[in-house]
Amino acid sequence: MFKKILFPTDFSDVSKKAVKYIKQLKGAGAQEVIILHVIDEKELLVLSRVAGQYLQITAQIEKEVAEEMAAIEAEMTTEGFRVKLKVKTGRPFTEIMAAVAEEKASLIIMGSHGRSNIEEMLMGSVSENVIRHAKVPLLVISREI
Amino acid sequence: MFKKILFPTDFSDVSKKAVKYIKQLKGAGAQEVIILHVIDEKELLVLSRVAGQYLQITAQIEKEVAEEMAAIEAEMTTEGFRVKLKVKTGRPFTEIMAAVAEEKASLIIMGSHGRSNIEEMLMGSVSENVIRHAKVPLLVISREI
Repeated sequence: MFKKILFPTDFSDVSKKAVKYIKQLKGAGAQEVIILHVIDEKELLVLSRVAGQYLQITAQIEKEVAEEMAAIEAEMTTEGFRVKLKVKTGRPFTEIMAAVAEEKASLIIMGSHGRSNIEEMLMGSVSENVIRHAKVPLLVISREI
Repeated sequence: MFKKILFPTDFSDVSKKAVKYIKQLKGAGAQEVIILHVIDEKELLVLSRVAGQYLQITAQIEKEVAEEMAAIEAEMTTEGFRVKLKVKTGRPFTEIMAAVAEEKASLIIMGSHGRSNIEEMLMGSVSENVIRHAKVPLLVISREI
């Protein structure tokens, strides 16, 4: 029921709070964590327009993402979870839904809000969309916890 | 972290699916369940207008609610949970937020949709509102599970 957890993360503080809930779910049968980061294609486009250096920005983002992912992976592995990392570029909601289906996840855990104000709105709508469409339970961790 | 669960329920099928998740959370430290049913004041008003028999309708609803609550209570008690029942009349979202604060709940579990089509929309917006405003994690159980 809680065996295979999909954890879409944007590495925000609220998203990191989800990590301690994943650990706690071990007692309820959690065994595997799929850590998913979606590089938002819209955000990438905006950044590349501002800076005009699409390839460099992409490389920089990919490097940062890899570091953040490795840190969460290490933490989860220490706790005895099997871990799989997934990095996708696209629309967060679409990629989350695709990962649920592909991985046959039994639960999604995500933060209620994202990093910045703009992403907050994006993430807000992402978790609401997930509520509406996901065929698996969703544990939403709020910012205020 | 999952010790005290607030379970707002409208007794719909999807809401009842939440019960098995509550049971499973015992292994993650769940000990107490607050079962909350909110008699929607708007719905009550509509019903009373149609039928013109406010007091009789209220009595009938209260009887049905008491029976549904007792059934869930029995199921939870059998599983070894401490159980508290709360029935409120008002706006579901407002009453859920009030109960979280009053009971110092550590987690809310609720269905993503309600009983009828109209309530579906209401419940849909209730769970989205809870995501936006709750200071505790929210586990949303979807209809398709």
